[in-house]
Amino acid sequence: MGKVRFSGVLVPAITPFTADYSIDIEKLYALCRELLAQGAAGLAIFGTTSEANSISASARMAAVDGLVARGIPAAKLLPGVGACAIADVAQLIRHAASAGCGGVLMLPPFYYKAVNDDGLFAFVANVIERVPDAPSIYLYHIPPVAQVGFGLDLIDRLITAFPGVVVGIKDSSGDQANTTAMIKRFPGFDVFAGSEVFLLETLRQGGVGCITATGSVNVPGIRAVLDNWQSAQAQVLQDRATLVRQTIQKFPMIPSVKAIVARATGEAGWKRVAPPLLALDAETEARLFSALSAIDFAPAQPVGAA
Amino acid sequence: MGKVRFSGVLVPAITPFTADYSIDIEKLYALCRELLAQGAAGLAIFGTTSEANSISASARMAAVDGLVARGIPAAKLLPGVGACAIADVAQLIRHAASAGCGGVLMLPPFYYKAVNDDGLFAFVANVIERVPDAPSIYLYHIPPVAQVGFGLDLIDRLITAFPGVVVGIKDSSGDQANTTAMIKRFPGFDVFAGSEVFLLETLRQGGVGCITATGSVNVPGIRAVLDNWQSAQAQVLQDRATLVRQTIQKFPMIPSVKAIVARATGEAGWKRVAPPLLALDAETEARLFSALSAIDFAPAQPVGAA
Repeated sequence: MGKVRFSGVLVPAITPFTADYSIDIEKLYALCRELLAQGAAGLAIFGTTSEANSISASARMAAVDGLVARGIPAAKLLPGVGACAIADVAQLIRHAASAGCGGVLMLPPFYYKAVNDDGLFAFVANVIERVPDAPSIYLYHIPPVAQVGFGLDLIDRLITAFPGVVVGIKDSSGDQANTTAMIKRFPGFDVFAGSEVFLLETLRQGGVGCITATGSVNVPGIRAVLDNWQSAQAQVLQDRATLVRQTIQKFPMIPSVKAIVARATGEAGWKRVAPPLLALDAETEARLFSALSAIDFAPAQPVGAA
Repeated sequence: MGKVRFSGVLVPAITPFTADYSIDIEKLYALCRELLAQGAAGLAIFGTTSEANSISASARMAAVDGLVARGIPAAKLLPGVGACAIADVAQLIRHAASAGCGGVLMLPPFYYKAVNDDGLFAFVANVIERVPDAPSIYLYHIPPVAQVGFGLDLIDRLITAFPGVVVGIKDSSGDQANTTAMIKRFPGFDVFAGSEVFLLETLRQGGVGCITATGSVNVPGIRAVLDNWQSAQAQVLQDRATLVRQTIQKFPMIPSVKAIVARATGEAGWKRVAPPLLALDAETEARLFSALSAIDFAPAQPVGAA
């Protein structure tokens, strides 16, 4: 098909906000450039960790353009196109296509909860029919947040109906058995673990990488697992990456990742999160850094320095 | 404050779609006009039953304008302004204000689930600060769908911080004890039952009315409860309205309401629902009408005739 396909460590980069929750494009660019330099294979901007759904579609599209204008290779971008209305998702994909993005990451519509596979299939199909030149579409399965998800039978229908268009998935179910089932059932379908905790096992089963919240602060540690997964060191490297992840996720994930980047860059603005999420309070932030210090973790420098 | 306040039977009118899920404004206008003629005190367009979150914000705003242009009194409109991003909610409220709408109905942001009252308060506060001339804001508590909701302590904080601005709520918790608790704790706060099943009890406790999915097909039956709630007939009228509601809600609510309006108007286009929701299949539709026939229910004629 000539479309870009992704593999490796993809990062749903956190989104820096100004005081009115506009995107600070210079900070976002600096972070994206740095993450690619550290070995990220792609940037899944505007995912859950990026607070995408707290940002208007127009601002998301403008930021894609802003990154490309500043020199981020569009082919490395895999923006989230999550929204509840067909017209909105189609608009985001159409824009990603026009910007030259390598792919898009697509949530299911997440307002109505009692929906079935026929309805979700109709939603995705209608979106795809509206954007004939869509880049590679990766499904985004994150039932703990979206509640609605892409089950195996639905994936089967989508792959069959849209070969070469629906090409992969991020599985943030947190259930390795589900990830493995996807890999085994759909040869040639690119399955990403939704957390680096599952990276080694996902690779061993035949998956292609991970797209993970903590990518914004630990690409080197996660790349180490990817680069050595068939070596004798693999489990030790995985254990280290897992320890970092599990230490961070004892705290609220998104503000914690932002706090780590704020400290690494010396730019306090990185701590800002958009409501309904909240920044860590000082006491929680202190406990986070104490916990990270206890495991000797510090992000590669300078992450996200403008 | 000079702001419009609502009471009585408000209807989250269903939204008629064209084949590409654009809004059929002529059909929507005809329905809205008819519902007001039948005794609806206001039109809570773009609620859950209206499939609001399956419609782009620009189309929702254009429809508000289209209804007003055709003669629906703006003061009778209480459009839903649900969205997950502060900027989007503010834009929808700003537009409602400029169109002269009497109020707006505001969901909490519904993507992230593990949010606390501080975060939800910050979200609503930030929205309100962006629209100083907002019309009356009614909160929309519908935890079975949104998962995130407005608890009593959060309501208290919002009323205290924004007196005369946050003036009421639609409680679609399905829990009369919760509705009663809202009424008792917040004198002067306008509490609407989220279903006519709870209308009589809500009025007896001091609530002001209901905003209900089945309003699109049964304003007369629900108005009868409202108009006679202190009479000897009240319970009989409530029992009848409840029977109609409970008969319909044995089937998928939104496509069922649309199917009823389609049959009443002879306009099959009313049956169209936007994915991820689906229209009733023929067999289910037949069972719905059989069940309605068994209780001798037919909507007032002509509902929604163009």
